Amino acid sequence: MIKVGVVGGTGYTGVELLRLLVLHPEVELKVVTSRSESGRKISDLYPNLRGHLDIEFTEPDVDRLAECDLVFFATPNGIAMKSVPTLLEKGVKVIDLAADFRIKDADLWSQWYGMEHACPELLEEAVYGLPETSRAEIAKARLVANPGCYPTAVQLGFLPLIKAGLVDPSALIADTKSGVSGAGRGASVATLLCEATESMKAYKADGHRHLPEITQGLQWHSEGKVGLTFVPHLTPMIRGIHATLYANLTQDVDDLQALFEQAYQDEPFVDVMPAGSHPETRSVKGANTCRIAVHKPQNGNTVIILSVIDNLVKGAAGQAIQNMNIMMGLEEDAGLRHVALLP
Amino acid sequence: MIKVGVVGGTGYTGVELLRLLVLHPEVELKVVTSRSESGRKISDLYPNLRGHLDIEFTEPDVDRLAECDLVFFATPNGIAMKSVPTLLEKGVKVIDLAADFRIKDADLWSQWYGMEHACPELLEEAVYGLPETSRAEIAKARLVANPGCYPTAVQLGFLPLIKAGLVDPSALIADTKSGVSGAGRGASVATLLCEATESMKAYKADGHRHLPEITQGLQWHSEGKVGLTFVPHLTPMIRGIHATLYANLTQDVDDLQALFEQAYQDEPFVDVMPAGSHPETRSVKGANTCRIAVHKPQNGNTVIILSVIDNLVKGAAGQAIQNMNIMMGLEEDAGLRHVALLP
Amino acid sequence: MIKVGVVGGTGYTGVELLRLLVLHPEVELKVVTSRSESGRKISDLYPNLRGHLDIEFTEPDVDRLAECDLVFFATPNGIAMKSVPTLLEKGVKVIDLAADFRIKDADLWSQWYGMEHACPELLEEAVYGLPETSRAEIAKARLVANPGCYPTAVQLGFLPLIKAGLVDPSALIADTKSGVSGAGRGASVATLLCEATESMKAYKADGHRHLPEITQGLQWHSEGKVGLTFVPHLTPMIRGIHATLYANLTQDVDDLQALFEQAYQDEPFVDVMPAGSHPETRSVKGANTCRIAVHKPQNGNTVIILSVIDNLVKGAAGQAIQNMNIMMGLEEDAGLRHVALLP
Amino acid sequence: MIKVGVVGGTGYTGVELLRLLVLHPEVELKVVTSRSESGRKISDLYPNLRGHLDIEFTEPDVDRLAECDLVFFATPNGIAMKSVPTLLEKGVKVIDLAADFRIKDADLWSQWYGMEHACPELLEEAVYGLPETSRAEIAKARLVANPGCYPTAVQLGFLPLIKAGLVDPSALIADTKSGVSGAGRGASVATLLCEATESMKAYKADGHRHLPEITQGLQWHSEGKVGLTFVPHLTPMIRGIHATLYANLTQDVDDLQALFEQAYQDEPFVDVMPAGSHPETRSVKGANTCRIAVHKPQNGNTVIILSVIDNLVKGAAGQAIQNMNIMMGLEEDAGLRHVALLP
Repeated sequence: MIKVGVVGGTGYTGVELLRLLVLHPEVELKVVTSRSESGRKISDLYPNLRGHLDIEFTEPDVDRLAECDLVFFATPNGIAMKSVPTLLEKGVKVIDLAADFRIKDADLWSQWYGMEHACPELLEEAVYGLPETSRAEIAKARLVANPGCYPTAVQLGFLPLIKAGLVDPSALIADTKSGVSGAGRGASVATLLCEATESMKAYKADGHRHLPEITQGLQWHSEGKVGLTFVPHLTPMIRGIHATLYANLTQDVDDLQALFEQAYQDEPFVDVMPAGSHPETRSVKGANTCRIAVHKPQNGNTVIILSVIDNLVKGAAGQAIQNMNIMMGLEEDAGLRHVALLP
Repeated sequence: MIKVGVVGGTGYTGVELLRLLVLHPEVELKVVTSRSESGRKISDLYPNLRGHLDIEFTEPDVDRLAECDLVFFATPNGIAMKSVPTLLEKGVKVIDLAADFRIKDADLWSQWYGMEHACPELLEEAVYGLPETSRAEIAKARLVANPGCYPTAVQLGFLPLIKAGLVDPSALIADTKSGVSGAGRGASVATLLCEATESMKAYKADGHRHLPEITQGLQWHSEGKVGLTFVPHLTPMIRGIHATLYANLTQDVDDLQALFEQAYQDEPFVDVMPAGSHPETRSVKGANTCRIAVHKPQNGNTVIILSVIDNLVKGAAGQAIQNMNIMMGLEEDAGLRHVALLP
Repeated sequence: MIKVGVVGGTGYTGVELLRLLVLHPEVELKVVTSRSESGRKISDLYPNLRGHLDIEFTEPDVDRLAECDLVFFATPNGIAMKSVPTLLEKGVKVIDLAADFRIKDADLWSQWYGMEHACPELLEEAVYGLPETSRAEIAKARLVANPGCYPTAVQLGFLPLIKAGLVDPSALIADTKSGVSGAGRGASVATLLCEATESMKAYKADGHRHLPEITQGLQWHSEGKVGLTFVPHLTPMIRGIHATLYANLTQDVDDLQALFEQAYQDEPFVDVMPAGSHPETRSVKGANTCRIAVHKPQNGNTVIILSVIDNLVKGAAGQAIQNMNIMMGLEEDAGLRHVALLP
Repeated sequence: MIKVGVVGGTGYTGVELLRLLVLHPEVELKVVTSRSESGRKISDLYPNLRGHLDIEFTEPDVDRLAECDLVFFATPNGIAMKSVPTLLEKGVKVIDLAADFRIKDADLWSQWYGMEHACPELLEEAVYGLPETSRAEIAKARLVANPGCYPTAVQLGFLPLIKAGLVDPSALIADTKSGVSGAGRGASVATLLCEATESMKAYKADGHRHLPEITQGLQWHSEGKVGLTFVPHLTPMIRGIHATLYANLTQDVDDLQALFEQAYQDEPFVDVMPAGSHPETRSVKGANTCRIAVHKPQNGNTVIILSVIDNLVKGAAGQAIQNMNIMMGLEEDAGLRHVALLP
């Protein structure tokens, strides 16, 4: 059994981690920290865990965390970077579900996240935890930066085309729609039911923090320079990301469907749907799966990729556990064989 | 491994059964029948099952079903009763998720369900599958009538008081609220998103088919004659039943909370919440749990019981699997240790 | 044209008042105050008002308010009572949409609202603004206490039976379901979309502030002492209250339907539905209507009344404008002839 | 008073027409036809109309319709074209809310709508009823083809740029999101609440019927050939279209904001939001308004236009009434001064 800790277990990513971890056959959950809820029984805050998890939130404490084999940070941006160096020194592996270690360029990170980086020297070592591109590095990593939700859906959709050099990387468009849980559990007017249900809106059309992360990830696999227009939308539902991706083919392609099927044929958590499909976000609700379909309307040169994930699972907690499984030498799908809840 | 068949796997109860069965460690799913979808891959209809279930719907066929140890009927009312006698003869155990075997009195059944009963001689033998009251009988049963969704939530809420003889059984009120999945997957105007979301309404206030079922179940445990007013409401959500129950105490009671906690202390799937709680339906979404809280406002003589279930799980497919586990001598919670999906 | 002011125009009741007032043919909206949003254009906060209302929020200022013929308070409880005496002195009529003047007994009010009353001497004079019971008094009032949302739906449902002396007033049950807008526009975790959608729960089963208000209102029309059990529920929708009311007949009644139809035959905003109906909350969304249906299941002695309103209209802003129309001698339905938005 | 008839009043477009018409100060609603509901009181089907409309649905009958000054067809595609020639002969003006007269090329129409056109000779005369481009022609028209919902939102968004010749018309992308009411009121599994809520999906990515309509409309105003990629999405809400439009600038532009503001400065129903805005669909719920914002992220050469409408109002019934007002010489906003219902 692997001893695991969770720092910041009160947000939606935290509770989703706990849901998955309490059912994981190889995990012993040792400690879940929360400054604000310290001393409170976790299942008081999250009654879905009643009968599954009997421990309390505790104050963050490096020594207790150091008893774990691996620690997840499900904290706001800028928290993990303060404690990670110490934990790594003590031999604890770390997966950060926030953005602290996702961007290799510390200046770029500071520009988008509005603070100095506390340990830029770790940025090079940190492995960007998208298993479909970096499985071998993750297996050897001490520190994994778990990808953002939008970046997961967008990269998995674009990468087969980018890697094959079939599209113009300088004119990519990602029109993405996210459920409201992506905005977190903080009290705010904008995400009240009465503000967010029965409505649709774009936000941060002029620049969202996930833009540099996606661009960086695509650039790693592109010969030409990546240029991405990225518009996120707030969608009236709890969970789910639907990425609608547009790219221009630079050459004739016989069979885009086969290209995608081959690209992901060995991937346990990427499902290329049959030609002509339109994946629904509900088909992955609660599951660690990315479902993808590819279209070429009117046989023109525009490719449309439809890519859906559950933002809290493959876009956060599930992918983090997938990374843990790889890092700890477990079966990659251990604790992740959930079927999406439908309807 | 137990060989299992499902008759009528295309409705919401059916797909929920499949979700739970494909993850059940002791079950081999042999056959899933559907007249309308015969020959179609199940995961084409329900993409959440892609990667988990590779078989096709087949025509209903008694001989193939007879190869199973146990068959679930997730069919409309009036279908199971036509095939059950044959299956029982062939030594197959049966759990009917519809209403065919729930009412002991064939005439009463005909009156509410509008048809003749095809095998009234089996009504006596059929065990009403509420494990919390009939575990021993279920364990020996060949034929189990799986309770309705409302009847499960209402009976589990009232029974501790009825059994203890503390309330007037002749003046019970059950005000119940159900998600729309309770109405099934049939195409109908009334359950379109545009008709049912952002609205609330009562229905069948003059008499719903679950009324005689609940009355029968409560009467089995009551000295006095049971009189129940039962009003169901259509609630703008997919899953969940919230039963708000009202009863009048006939004597002083020291500690209602303790009464409920003791009544359910050994029950794996009934969770009595702390005093003062208000259980949310989302706390059981996807889980086989009934959560209950009890209130006595202003210390008067009216007791309020709040009882929530997922209508598709503890109110249908999950309870059916719980019954299967009991009938087949498996651990009662095998395949049912899911944590509710929250948020 | 009547000169009108609104104190506290930033909440949901406030914006609904503004929606109705800007379309009212006899109203000139002079001033809308907000401490927190002072100086901000109202239509910046509420873009639905763009093109309809061009003024800014201003600081609350008694002298400016005194230029109005009538002032609405759409403020939290405890605010209006501080300014109302001054405004009345200056000859301004006042409608308070909060609870400050709803309860005649200052001690009872303090007990439920947790503060001293600032002007208990006005409680006697204040008219409880339910036009269906107090039209004549409202017409002469300087100060109207606009009823709460639940109290409106519950009283309109029970009153014909209570007034006729047909039911036992000591054993009334009101099981009520409200959309989330009833909880207001304050940032809070409990009313986030991710917490409140796809779920149903009761709250304050042990005592909600509207209980004494409803009891008082029913008692005014009852010979016997009123005893009410009142359980509110949070329902996953924005607008709407569905009150399901239970009472026990004390005598045989020939025609409950006729009783209700006669009771409300001259009321412009109460619609008694045909026998057997189940009113939907969406049928009053955005409209100042209460729709009612009455049932007597299995011809027993329990009466069920189904009563629906839009909590922000007939339950708040619309009823306030109805009261204004009566107070100012306008046509009672001026500015209130909206058709509910369906679907 | 103008005498008006509605053919096909049972769908969502029909009931929205009725909601707006019963409040229209210059309209007398003479006849509403429905084959399926003939003889039924309209307000029985749509209880929001109780107290506002007392007539029954009648069988379609050309002679009765001919007594009207103007007839709206809110019928499925292919119905209006059978009766329109006769009505025009009898001097009745017609507005078709379906697609029968939207496409000038009868062959193209047949190709997308799968039937022969019944009166291709009227296609030339029919005026495409987008007031913002064709007000003068509409004023003189006998027959107006009311634009589709997506085409309205997309054309109003793109047209200022196309007309100014600032973008490459051959590489336009329209990623559009629609509420479920766009799919109509027919009983179908795909639009059940349990199928469509809490999920997001694209549909008809390979070609939607509104594609040729939009292309035609943009081409009328474009020097270069229009090439459009159009992907519609089903969004879990009742009303609203959010069009996210992408185009590539072909030259430097000083002030896109000013371009849009000038383009629509005299338009009563197009609202250009302040720079940096993200319009929400709820800000137009129930109102005949299109709100638009324009973005140029990272000062690149991609323009993003955000355009929102209520699909049933500016996308259907409201625009139809706007057209009626223009055709009949009424004030263009008569009966259309509704404020969106928010929250």
